[in-house]
Amino acid sequence: MGAEARAAPAVEILAFDVFGTVVDWHGSIAREVHAIDPTVDGSAFANAWRDGYQPAMARVRSGEFGWTKIDDLHRMILDAILPRFGLGSMPEAQRRQLNLAWHRLDPWPEAVAGLERLKVKYRLCTLSNGNLGLLANMARRARLPWDLILSAEVFRHYKPDPETYLGVADVFDVAPSQVMLVAAHKSDLHAAKACGLATAFVERPTEFGSDVVNDVSRDPAFDIHATGFDHLANQLGC
Amino acid sequence: MGAEARAAPAVEILAFDVFGTVVDWHGSIAREVHAIDPTVDGSAFANAWRDGYQPAMARVRSGEFGWTKIDDLHRMILDAILPRFGLGSMPEAQRRQLNLAWHRLDPWPEAVAGLERLKVKYRLCTLSNGNLGLLANMARRARLPWDLILSAEVFRHYKPDPETYLGVADVFDVAPSQVMLVAAHKSDLHAAKACGLATAFVERPTEFGSDVVNDVSRDPAFDIHATGFDHLANQLGC
Repeated sequence: MGAEARAAPAVEILAFDVFGTVVDWHGSIAREVHAIDPTVDGSAFANAWRDGYQPAMARVRSGEFGWTKIDDLHRMILDAILPRFGLGSMPEAQRRQLNLAWHRLDPWPEAVAGLERLKVKYRLCTLSNGNLGLLANMARRARLPWDLILSAEVFRHYKPDPETYLGVADVFDVAPSQVMLVAAHKSDLHAAKACGLATAFVERPTEFGSDVVNDVSRDPAFDIHATGFDHLANQLGC
Repeated sequence: MGAEARAAPAVEILAFDVFGTVVDWHGSIAREVHAIDPTVDGSAFANAWRDGYQPAMARVRSGEFGWTKIDDLHRMILDAILPRFGLGSMPEAQRRQLNLAWHRLDPWPEAVAGLERLKVKYRLCTLSNGNLGLLANMARRARLPWDLILSAEVFRHYKPDPETYLGVADVFDVAPSQVMLVAAHKSDLHAAKACGLATAFVERPTEFGSDVVNDVSRDPAFDIHATGFDHLANQLGC
């Protein structure tokens, strides 16, 4: 507990990665696709859609695209993968509706109760590459108790650009070390740490489905390693 | 009820002005100043602080200043008015604390219950010139049930610049006519209407204190005229 004891006292803001950390995008997308066509491998579809995400954001980060919302990147990727799954003839209205599946992602079972515990002591915000409208619709549906929804859209930079992590500290007028990024992704946490943020890794072993092995091993670089938000709350003295 | 019947069906998003419309800045600031020094006229102090607000934002809007948060504009104005009220020797720590009074504004007595009613049918957001951190702290303390906190800080433009009103529609991916601005200020509503938004005027007759006459007369330019959020909810069929 030495690392938490060192880092925790000054932390005032918990900033949460969302896709995979708070909500189960894989299971939610797989269920939506399965409901449209039970012959499609929903798990493979979800992972194919998500696989297009980092390359699409990289084209924004490099300047090849101007600022583009995740909703629009999701749609570009969707159009590209539909034929691969035999769904190339899906009509426009259904594509629009399916694209909004990312607004309807279900939280991990313990997430909301864990956030409510953490909220008693800390201010909670998102720090997601998802756009503001998406995150607001998701929070309303899933009753996620954010004090503030922050997004790459506010900073006009996608994670892992430093402007995002430092932007949280600026918004709340605190030092970077008073913000803790909570995420299930080590690359996100390493980038936050490089900006001076405190870091908490959360295990989400089935993020990519139960048949994909996901690295949830402890990395001593991070201040906290937690099996979920309840375990995080325990370690933060909530 | 003809105007509401025409405007209401398409509206999905209610965007709220905050200072004066949702929260009683005058009474809250007057109380904080009175608690510091009972010999100061808290009402006059509150109005003097607020009087500096539009001119300060105008210097940002004109480009004279780069982007500057309301917290920082409030502090500049505070430093300028303290000597006028015999408080010129106030120490730095107390100035910082007093400046945060704008994060601790109390809502009008019926505001929270009215917002809860409206939230059942509509998505609720702020559209305030207040900065994100201020609005988040205020919402947490006063339990304001926003689906999304939007601020001039997101759009890097202060109201009444069109980028703010149109920005709300863009964030939620709806037409401007599907957003209704709710405000106690006619100039704000006229600017929103010019951008195609629906408009609801809310009477806050004591916004500047009980001894200042505030124009709350009906203006037929707006879709709805309400005496408060309950009255607004009635007219919107909530």
